[in-house]
Amino acid sequence: MAKRNKPVRPKARVPKGLRDIGAGEVRALDAMLSGIRSVYELYGFEPLDTPAFEYTDALGKFLPDQDRPNEGVFSFQDEDEQWLSLRYDLTAPLARFVAENYDGLAKPFRRYQFGPVWRNEKPGPGRYRQFMQFDADTVGTASVAADAELCMMAADCLEALGIKRGDYVMRVNNRKVLDGILERIGIAGDDAGYEAQRMTVLRAIDKLDRLGPEGVRLLLGEGRKDESGDYTKGAGLSDDHAGLIMAFVETEADSRDGVVERLREIVGDSETGLAGVAELAEISALGAAAGYGEDRVRLDPSVVRGLGYYTGPVFEAELTFSAQNEKGETVRFGSVGGGGRYDGLVQRFKGVEVPATGFSFGVSRLQTALETTGALAAAAVAAPVIVLVMDRDNLADYQKLTFDLRSAGIRAEMYLGTSGMRAQMKYADRRGAPAVVIQGEDERARGEVTIKDLEKGARLSGEIADNEEWRSGRPAQVSVPQSGLIDAVREILSHQQD
Amino acid sequence: MAKRNKPVRPKARVPKGLRDIGAGEVRALDAMLSGIRSVYELYGFEPLDTPAFEYTDALGKFLPDQDRPNEGVFSFQDEDEQWLSLRYDLTAPLARFVAENYDGLAKPFRRYQFGPVWRNEKPGPGRYRQFMQFDADTVGTASVAADAELCMMAADCLEALGIKRGDYVMRVNNRKVLDGILERIGIAGDDAGYEAQRMTVLRAIDKLDRLGPEGVRLLLGEGRKDESGDYTKGAGLSDDHAGLIMAFVETEADSRDGVVERLREIVGDSETGLAGVAELAEISALGAAAGYGEDRVRLDPSVVRGLGYYTGPVFEAELTFSAQNEKGETVRFGSVGGGGRYDGLVQRFKGVEVPATGFSFGVSRLQTALETTGALAAAAVAAPVIVLVMDRDNLADYQKLTFDLRSAGIRAEMYLGTSGMRAQMKYADRRGAPAVVIQGEDERARGEVTIKDLEKGARLSGEIADNEEWRSGRPAQVSVPQSGLIDAVREILSHQQD
Repeated sequence: MAKRNKPVRPKARVPKGLRDIGAGEVRALDAMLSGIRSVYELYGFEPLDTPAFEYTDALGKFLPDQDRPNEGVFSFQDEDEQWLSLRYDLTAPLARFVAENYDGLAKPFRRYQFGPVWRNEKPGPGRYRQFMQFDADTVGTASVAADAELCMMAADCLEALGIKRGDYVMRVNNRKVLDGILERIGIAGDDAGYEAQRMTVLRAIDKLDRLGPEGVRLLLGEGRKDESGDYTKGAGLSDDHAGLIMAFVETEADSRDGVVERLREIVGDSETGLAGVAELAEISALGAAAGYGEDRVRLDPSVVRGLGYYTGPVFEAELTFSAQNEKGETVRFGSVGGGGRYDGLVQRFKGVEVPATGFSFGVSRLQTALETTGALAAAAVAAPVIVLVMDRDNLADYQKLTFDLRSAGIRAEMYLGTSGMRAQMKYADRRGAPAVVIQGEDERARGEVTIKDLEKGARLSGEIADNEEWRSGRPAQVSVPQSGLIDAVREILSHQQD
Repeated sequence: MAKRNKPVRPKARVPKGLRDIGAGEVRALDAMLSGIRSVYELYGFEPLDTPAFEYTDALGKFLPDQDRPNEGVFSFQDEDEQWLSLRYDLTAPLARFVAENYDGLAKPFRRYQFGPVWRNEKPGPGRYRQFMQFDADTVGTASVAADAELCMMAADCLEALGIKRGDYVMRVNNRKVLDGILERIGIAGDDAGYEAQRMTVLRAIDKLDRLGPEGVRLLLGEGRKDESGDYTKGAGLSDDHAGLIMAFVETEADSRDGVVERLREIVGDSETGLAGVAELAEISALGAAAGYGEDRVRLDPSVVRGLGYYTGPVFEAELTFSAQNEKGETVRFGSVGGGGRYDGLVQRFKGVEVPATGFSFGVSRLQTALETTGALAAAAVAAPVIVLVMDRDNLADYQKLTFDLRSAGIRAEMYLGTSGMRAQMKYADRRGAPAVVIQGEDERARGEVTIKDLEKGARLSGEIADNEEWRSGRPAQVSVPQSGLIDAVREILSHQQD
């Protein structure tokens, strides 16, 4: 038998490293964003929305952990053969925006922006090629009061989202302090020849959480072999030099003032280093004056941030509590955002330095943490009441019942399929509907409607664990005159909210 | 003199056809979306967020007005050399999502989605390569009650956004009616040989608004030369056939029933055509039952929608009022959204037909219209109160004043630049600040603050047209004990809201 050629059908699959986001997560995200936005607004930041892609040359090459130029981004050419790239963060487009509109901006310019960014990187568990960022940046001032403000604002955001004081901390450091130490070691400053080495040092320190002091020390020196046997080449510093950096990274003291004092000793007479220490002292003083104690804004020299472009204060928002995840495992959430000062980024375009500093929430990490604490539960929206269709010839009547419910502000659907009663009840169940509205022929003749309360019988309270048992418990139902529909449904919904 | 080589600096420019969206527009957009979303939610639709790009083969080739396959989209390859494209609408990704997750979805499946889409087309005035869409779709039911529901929901959205009844209309047609007529003409059905001709007919009808009946008639026949002398080839129909289509397109009657009757005559004995007319009659009846009169949901055979994939009802949301724009010109807004039934789109993946229908708001057009009517004015957010810095050595004190304002829920900024009083006042002016807070050395010694009301002096009321005059009017100011700061600022803000 000759087979007929079938038409080639594309396979329906979401692209590698991307994902669809369902209703619950979209709503939780909205709730979280609206909490952050209200704090950003309170601080005088204004929203800005830049497009999804930029000219590749305008984006620059500021991807973290990206050694290969122009890798890590999704790029394509327009019809003029100019290269375009999807933005990999919201900072590079801001630098382009500021440079393009410099004269028209009231400065210092505070803006916030929320949106997806894209990275052409190897996907992994929880690591996607599209993810959200929510940034706030202040452009046009060199004052570290701007950095201090961002730290306090991030702290306010976390509290606005329901994270208790003591369960988070803003960790603050200053790149100039590290630069001062690198000066002492002899690989600092504008000497491009040492740039790769400096980046290796930065990335080594950035791994302190994961590798511990021993691992970092190896990466500062010759290099390190991990458990899988892979070897990472180190920065090649001498033991003395690596020791100096470790002393810096592990600086601890009882108070912010204590940290400042110890850092002053470590940087010695490096001007850059001393300037960095002075800035840290000022941020500390500003925090104290506004009532942000060391429990909220902490000086922590182990914070360096992996990005090459930071030039002064750097900071990280860390969640310090542990929680049980769905699988009963204890998880620590760690960093949920960070930022710092990048005085050189706008300079790429303008040739003159435009001081700037910014903070960015790692939206998806923060959301995971908030879901675990239950802070986003309020974002849940009641599923709609379903009006069953018992008799397709009278669709307009069911439409009218649905319309009446909606007019009263009650989320409602008419069942739109063609299936019978059983399938309709199953649909209502899958939708998580709080109630269904039923009007059969007899009821219509009597001018009545029946409302089944689908949550009665303890589906939500969890008292009855067994599904079979719940079903046999027969959800409660009431029949009322059609004019009493709204009141009866409202009564059922209000009981369910208890 | 030898010139030194300057480093090559990238030019800061937003890519061609893209744009940055400023604070006022972002806020107005949010307000509009939240109005639409609440109506969509009321109807039982659930949010879904699909990623920005898809495998090119999954997106298909459903761009309107796009004769060249795979043109019109931005595409790039991933490391497996598979082609990816930025989505050009939200419908094609929905079809992919539904096909991929078919068994897990409670059907009929109602979802809404908001987000940017991208088109690689020639930009023009008001025509961008990235723009927003806000879609609602119902998948898994062939019932035209789903189409009727979308029409009513769109009407509800427009009213929720402040557009008065009578100022908009949902125009509804049915592709099957047109198909019935094409059957009579002999170019209908599954015969792929006529597909191009059918699309030419569709696009010709779609231009009725712009070209008038004469222009459409030419495009149905030999073709048409426009004012610039460009010639567009027509569908090549005979005069008789073009006449039949024009009779259909121009069908008018006093009532929906009248339109149904006349269409029934025009389609003759075409089964497809009669089925389409019956569906229109049902939509009309459902609308009437729910109280959506002919002023809100109107049968209008001139609506065809340019897209090839529609298979049944098609509809358009039209604003019928005129308004003056900023330049004093009278503008009509016309279509601000549309949609229809596309029973074949999921079939591309699954091989079996999955009935579906959807509606999409043209977000930017709708926003322009709402701005003109002033409906989005409520989205305006008060500019922050600015705390001036009179003495940089006491930054922490000014920080504290700012903090106190924010703690009271008042949007506030400390001036973060290094400039003097005059520049700070200019900054406050450019920011549109309602007030500034001043504390000089003497005031600090006395424990006082001064608040200048920047709007007093009739800057907003417009009574004083001349800027010079306003300045000399000396904005009112009060000095109060520092403990009275919040009350004094609140008092000023409340007066300004009057």
